[in-house]
Amino acid sequence: MLYRQTIRWARAAELALAIDAGRERAQEALDALRRQRDDDRRPYLCLPARTDDLPAIEARAEAIRASGVGDVVVLGTGGSSLGTRALLALDGPTLGASSGLRVHVPDNLGATLMDAVLRDLDPARTHFIAVSKSGGTAETVAQTLTAFEAVSAALGPTRAAQAFTLVSEPGGSPLRRLAGQWGVATLDHDPDLGGRYSVMSVVGALPALLAGFDIAALRRGAGRVVDQALAPGADPAHVPAAEAAVLGHVAGEAAGAAIAVLLAYDDRLAPFTRWWAQLWAESLGKRGLGSTPVAALGPVDQHSQLQLYLDGPGDKLISLVKPVTAGTGPRVAPALTAGAGEGRLDYLSGRTIGDLVDAEADATAEALVRRGRPVRVLTIDRVDAETLGALMMHFMLETVITAHLIAVDPFDQPAVEEGKQLTRAALRGTGDALAAAVPAGLVSDLGVSAT
Amino acid sequence: MLYRQTIRWARAAELALAIDAGRERAQEALDALRRQRDDDRRPYLCLPARTDDLPAIEARAEAIRASGVGDVVVLGTGGSSLGTRALLALDGPTLGASSGLRVHVPDNLGATLMDAVLRDLDPARTHFIAVSKSGGTAETVAQTLTAFEAVSAALGPTRAAQAFTLVSEPGGSPLRRLAGQWGVATLDHDPDLGGRYSVMSVVGALPALLAGFDIAALRRGAGRVVDQALAPGADPAHVPAAEAAVLGHVAGEAAGAAIAVLLAYDDRLAPFTRWWAQLWAESLGKRGLGSTPVAALGPVDQHSQLQLYLDGPGDKLISLVKPVTAGTGPRVAPALTAGAGEGRLDYLSGRTIGDLVDAEADATAEALVRRGRPVRVLTIDRVDAETLGALMMHFMLETVITAHLIAVDPFDQPAVEEGKQLTRAALRGTGDALAAAVPAGLVSDLGVSAT
Repeated sequence: MLYRQTIRWARAAELALAIDAGRERAQEALDALRRQRDDDRRPYLCLPARTDDLPAIEARAEAIRASGVGDVVVLGTGGSSLGTRALLALDGPTLGASSGLRVHVPDNLGATLMDAVLRDLDPARTHFIAVSKSGGTAETVAQTLTAFEAVSAALGPTRAAQAFTLVSEPGGSPLRRLAGQWGVATLDHDPDLGGRYSVMSVVGALPALLAGFDIAALRRGAGRVVDQALAPGADPAHVPAAEAAVLGHVAGEAAGAAIAVLLAYDDRLAPFTRWWAQLWAESLGKRGLGSTPVAALGPVDQHSQLQLYLDGPGDKLISLVKPVTAGTGPRVAPALTAGAGEGRLDYLSGRTIGDLVDAEADATAEALVRRGRPVRVLTIDRVDAETLGALMMHFMLETVITAHLIAVDPFDQPAVEEGKQLTRAALRGTGDALAAAVPAGLVSDLGVSAT
Repeated sequence: MLYRQTIRWARAAELALAIDAGRERAQEALDALRRQRDDDRRPYLCLPARTDDLPAIEARAEAIRASGVGDVVVLGTGGSSLGTRALLALDGPTLGASSGLRVHVPDNLGATLMDAVLRDLDPARTHFIAVSKSGGTAETVAQTLTAFEAVSAALGPTRAAQAFTLVSEPGGSPLRRLAGQWGVATLDHDPDLGGRYSVMSVVGALPALLAGFDIAALRRGAGRVVDQALAPGADPAHVPAAEAAVLGHVAGEAAGAAIAVLLAYDDRLAPFTRWWAQLWAESLGKRGLGSTPVAALGPVDQHSQLQLYLDGPGDKLISLVKPVTAGTGPRVAPALTAGAGEGRLDYLSGRTIGDLVDAEADATAEALVRRGRPVRVLTIDRVDAETLGALMMHFMLETVITAHLIAVDPFDQPAVEEGKQLTRAALRGTGDALAAAVPAGLVSDLGVSAT
């Protein structure tokens, strides 16, 4: 079993008509998806079945490995890096110094962060992979240019060129032109593949291959989900992604569930929830519609957010991702619990850390159901590449089906352009009027001084 | 200037009456807070002015340092660790192997995570600080018992005892009793200080001192905020925390702003936003009230969440924390941008990474205001201990004043007890009925198989 989805919501019975109507619309969405897959029109649907693109990616990975580097830095942001972070996190935490190839994904742009990259890493033993679909993303351009300048200054432009790989769509974009001038190896980003749907392409695959991640297994898991969802005659009531989309839509329309929480009970899945938060927000948040994603982590958020989820506003659809962890991890020795007295730790005696996490996830779901909250549990047997592929494809389908239900385009992001224009204007110095004028709608302007 | 708060919202003018009413209630809250501080009734308000507790904490830190350890692990969850993570993050990222004392705060419970702690760290050179106010937190108990067992097995019980410190309130709790039997040094957690308000106490101070963090500066910054807010005759319209609480309350009541976003433009502040998310959710999420916190990070979330914030539902109050970073970080060489052709990168030419982040934060705020969203910008000159102390106290006051406005107790968390009882029942084996029965409100139960 790659995953099992269980949905519980006491109010579902009274909303049966709305759920049936939603399933009919979901059927349309599945039919459309099937046609898109069969016509090879949507790369994210077709990637699971592909293997022809992997040799070129593996060859580039091998060339990078052969250059003797110890560190790889992925320069990119949002759709160019969140998925990669999710893949790399599966390895789990390493608290000591790691040996072998280390792949860093700074993801965010920051002066301190970029200073650290250029300060801590040896330019002679570091490779930079710049990922920007458009080839003009301001953050990635700034990271790439400052890194290239630093490596050039240390090693000269010829060796600097060998220390970079660009992943970008074909054309004459700024990064593409610069890479051509510098002699930097370039791999093509599919122009039809939006960043937040790109994790299984070269975008995630090149860094993941370098880190020893099994991309073929990732695609295999995703392929199982596509095959089941788009099988001829598949009933949406039997497709987990469709059923979840319908429930979420009904919960939003009928019960004001404006917030979607994804609560994963494993640290290794925390970056996956952040990948999902972009997928969900940017695909659906349009024309006043969409629900707001909240990425959460169990058990810690039981001590941070659960009070709100249980007793605050009833505006959330809460999804748990629960690896079956019973019996794993260190075991609590009965001799130690006995000393705590009065049987107060008997419940932990002889139990493993995994037993406790398992029980906490079940108890959290049960407590939420008892409070009348809509709850979905995605149970997974293993935290591995194949399962992650299945989960990622599940959520891509759920997102696209939800977009059909609310009638928005899941592949564009029109609203963010204004912010980009304001940024460029400010940096060009033509934005001064903006800063100098009395700001619109000023309510208050207060400060606290140091002395 | 420790921080400056600017609030902009076009709708505020039409809601002037509600804002005035809120300010009157905020005045009551400030008066009550002043009495509590003067009567020494609320430790979180009094901690900034204290120094008498620091010598004992410093002495324990010195004893841990003198034992020759290289790694310190803080065992704790939620209020016992999120604040500590926020303090430790100020140092910024280190991508290479670090020298000196490393302080790890796993925060979450997980079998893989705990396996890594016991696998990667040398028991002879590791110190464990267990933090649990009640002395019975299941996660912390399980972490502490399995770690103690592992160190005992490696080094014997006497040296194991020296490798642990317990921070817990006085009394006969499980961890307190065990620490006594084992001979583990124990520091008192103030019984009147809830976990999410405890960061400036021994809870955050002991690990932070070990990491070289300036606790005195943290308290100094917090003290400035308390002094300004609780000065005799202070007008709430001139107290940033009160003004923000009033605006958030009015936005929630009058404009359906059920979500509070805290978007920090610096990686070093990301754990601070997660500390805030617990403070906000657990203090206010009661009796169907409270707004849902969303911790966000700029610029990356411009590529993940901004589409939703700008064009999705108008249900958010968005707060930016913006360090002034202009002129900092690596600079984009004009010679490189020229090669991109057609002036397309002129806006980056000669600019620093910090210039770009600065411009992006301003542009994001401006774009949000233009869309009619309520926006608050907290501008800070520096990302340092004193400023962080000011921000933390600002948000504690804002939370407590908001609790007064919506009439909930900001210091309890009554709803999470049910989940804890269900967990214990499941681990004792008395929870089987729960798992075996047909779950209440079952909507669907579907799976995807691997083969």
